Amino acid sequence: MKKIFLNETDIPTHWYNIVADMPNKPLPPLNPKTKQPAGPDDLSPIFPMGLIQQEVSAEQYIEIPDEVRDIYKIWRPSPLYRATGLEKILDTPAKIYYKYEGVSPSGSHKPNTAVPQAYYNKQEGVKSITTETGAGQWGTALAFACAQFGLNCEVYMVRISYDQKPYRKVMMNTFGAEVYPSPSNRTQAGRNILEKTPDTSGSLGIAISEAIERAVGDENTKYSLGSVLNHVLLHQTIIGQEAIKQLEYAGDYPDVVIAPLGGGSNFAGIAFPFLKNNLSEGKTTRFIAVEPASCPKLTRGKFMYDHGDSAGYTPLLPMYTLGHNFRPAAIHAGGLRYHGASVLCSQLLKDNLIEAIALQQLECFEAGVIFGKSEGIIAAPEATHAIAQVIREAKQAKEEGKEKTILFNLCGHGFVDMAAYDDYFAGKLNDHEIADDIISGNIEEIEELQPQA
Amino acid sequence: MKKIFLNETDIPTHWYNIVADMPNKPLPPLNPKTKQPAGPDDLSPIFPMGLIQQEVSAEQYIEIPDEVRDIYKIWRPSPLYRATGLEKILDTPAKIYYKYEGVSPSGSHKPNTAVPQAYYNKQEGVKSITTETGAGQWGTALAFACAQFGLNCEVYMVRISYDQKPYRKVMMNTFGAEVYPSPSNRTQAGRNILEKTPDTSGSLGIAISEAIERAVGDENTKYSLGSVLNHVLLHQTIIGQEAIKQLEYAGDYPDVVIAPLGGGSNFAGIAFPFLKNNLSEGKTTRFIAVEPASCPKLTRGKFMYDHGDSAGYTPLLPMYTLGHNFRPAAIHAGGLRYHGASVLCSQLLKDNLIEAIALQQLECFEAGVIFGKSEGIIAAPEATHAIAQVIREAKQAKEEGKEKTILFNLCGHGFVDMAAYDDYFAGKLNDHEIADDIISGNIEEIEELQPQA
Repeated sequence: MKKIFLNETDIPTHWYNIVADMPNKPLPPLNPKTKQPAGPDDLSPIFPMGLIQQEVSAEQYIEIPDEVRDIYKIWRPSPLYRATGLEKILDTPAKIYYKYEGVSPSGSHKPNTAVPQAYYNKQEGVKSITTETGAGQWGTALAFACAQFGLNCEVYMVRISYDQKPYRKVMMNTFGAEVYPSPSNRTQAGRNILEKTPDTSGSLGIAISEAIERAVGDENTKYSLGSVLNHVLLHQTIIGQEAIKQLEYAGDYPDVVIAPLGGGSNFAGIAFPFLKNNLSEGKTTRFIAVEPASCPKLTRGKFMYDHGDSAGYTPLLPMYTLGHNFRPAAIHAGGLRYHGASVLCSQLLKDNLIEAIALQQLECFEAGVIFGKSEGIIAAPEATHAIAQVIREAKQAKEEGKEKTILFNLCGHGFVDMAAYDDYFAGKLNDHEIADDIISGNIEEIEELQPQA
Repeated sequence: MKKIFLNETDIPTHWYNIVADMPNKPLPPLNPKTKQPAGPDDLSPIFPMGLIQQEVSAEQYIEIPDEVRDIYKIWRPSPLYRATGLEKILDTPAKIYYKYEGVSPSGSHKPNTAVPQAYYNKQEGVKSITTETGAGQWGTALAFACAQFGLNCEVYMVRISYDQKPYRKVMMNTFGAEVYPSPSNRTQAGRNILEKTPDTSGSLGIAISEAIERAVGDENTKYSLGSVLNHVLLHQTIIGQEAIKQLEYAGDYPDVVIAPLGGGSNFAGIAFPFLKNNLSEGKTTRFIAVEPASCPKLTRGKFMYDHGDSAGYTPLLPMYTLGHNFRPAAIHAGGLRYHGASVLCSQLLKDNLIEAIALQQLECFEAGVIFGKSEGIIAAPEATHAIAQVIREAKQAKEEGKEKTILFNLCGHGFVDMAAYDDYFAGKLNDHEIADDIISGNIEEIEELQPQA
């Protein structure tokens, strides 16, 4: 591996908003009751106006406040590496680069948006932020950001993760956040579930409902989401902007850009600034979103209006989805276990401007082990999905005898995920096939949500 | 926090050898049987000649091979931060800087020496390296380095850590290392212990004996140690050399340099290049080594000849020691649980060129939590010992109304140590007082090792 350096002055000054350049603009979110387009007023009980303006903006560039850039400087610019070790082991003519977001305080790309989200809340006098977390990456990032701005942070952590991953909880506590297992008895949504199923292991959908309910019920409290929404994807575009500059120094430009896709934010972060060059400068880079075969919304889901949460509190979003009641298998890549894809990524996929592929987890862990040995970095299970696809592309380049430049987003390290590798080495992990009728059954449930023509 | 940048070209080209500048040179190690000075031949069964030459060298600077610098580039130069968040929370006139070694592939300063150690072994045709590890930081670093050079790596991990910290083992496996709980039945030393005490939880001393025995018994195998020895401290001096340059950019120079001390390598790494300026340029920086109150060799041990391991395989080293059979309490700062201090640090302490202090663990964890909230980085339990002393110095500066520049070594992150913080938050941790007779009893045992006049 060879590192490509940037200086602090190279941290982008603006976030890039792809809405400005999309040939087909995203469809509007809908109010779940009226099924009419949802406007800023629908969102103001749960988000500060600074973020709502970004959520609905069509401006191409939005300036990053100095206070946010100052905190970005803790870990940014993040390094870009040429994966010389991996190239050698694969004996490929392809050049492989990766942007490494694991250098952040919480170990993933998530603080890129947690920091501005905390900032805009602080600006508008908010005292507390609520959120949900599954595996814990997002909750840790928001806890870190809230500590930086002196905000309280209240995290609803899916019960099963709360029990199985106590160390993530302790990290959030160390940053000063309160962490509650979800469902909890702190909300009506939680109490309803606990009454019916006291032993439930919880779900991300329930945790979102609890966090939103807490925010709606208190004027000093707002809610925060770590992926899916336009403003979240917007904040992540600093990844790709830095990568463009770093590749310039290396005298290179990618033929293909690869990232895992859970809600869409890390994929968008690295892809959108390059995709802009496809849309406006005639570049022909391919963009591949990699999802787990156990949660294949992009490759087997449908483009429909659906809720972001199980309880139906959120607006209806036009997206590729498996239905908001789809329950993916408990794979270790917890950040990829979301039923839908962000509106922006969904529209781009529909318009064939990006591609998608679903991979099985055993291939991904095998790729992670190859990467650890050759590059020296142990990747988070989510990130191994990108690596597996990179290896496929590099092998294909070898077969075809073609030079090809591959860039991928190494969105986080695996220091807190070693139980996953342990299970892999112990032969405890399986691949997952999902029957067609399970997918169609879940999609049927959301057909009633579609607006009438 | 504000980060102070360096470029890759600023990675030092030489390691700094303090032996050249010490007013009193270190006493020689002794052959444990003859009690005569041990020479290179005594060490050649277990170390490659490239490292033995460094171990006995008195040259001021030793060139870093290009192959080693290339691998250093994965994570070096490491960042230096101005701890503006911590300064603010302490409301101190002191300026606080820290060098952050947690950015390495294994999360601590250990790869700084693991990489050159693997390199010199590879150069001399060695195929396998054996080592011991307690908490796992050193084993992980060596596993990473061996993977980079295509060497086998065999790690003897203290039984209790092997059982309690399975994720460290998985990290080593991911880098391709074999990891065995110690005592094992792979060595005579291990079998002897298992026969007498099959349920033993093991010790670092036993694990060292096992690793050495494996190396001595196979001509293609050598042994590697992660601290204590001169060549290990030498390799770490890149930390302080980079810090000098970074502080130059900041227009600053430290009045006091602080680091935790287990065997001495991370302390030496940051301190020695600055100490050179005390010795040769008349600077008056203070250097404070922080040890845990549960293992107080510097503040309550004696300067005597002692073995590095329990079984007595290693040469006798002149050092501050609690006796090689001293068993410290099972504190979470596993990297500081060593009975002796390196020869170089011991001689410098004896000559009053450095200072030492012992701190209780509750104060250290409290400091770690303050640091996590204010600076955004969760420190390894070892590193919190430095932070606690920094806070003492910063508070004193405030009381005295004095400006003072403090530099410390944040030698590793705590991502893999969250169980320690969990125990701290749960009130499960205690401070430790050691009775005088325990210490004097252990020291009595080594009095017979002293050479006769």
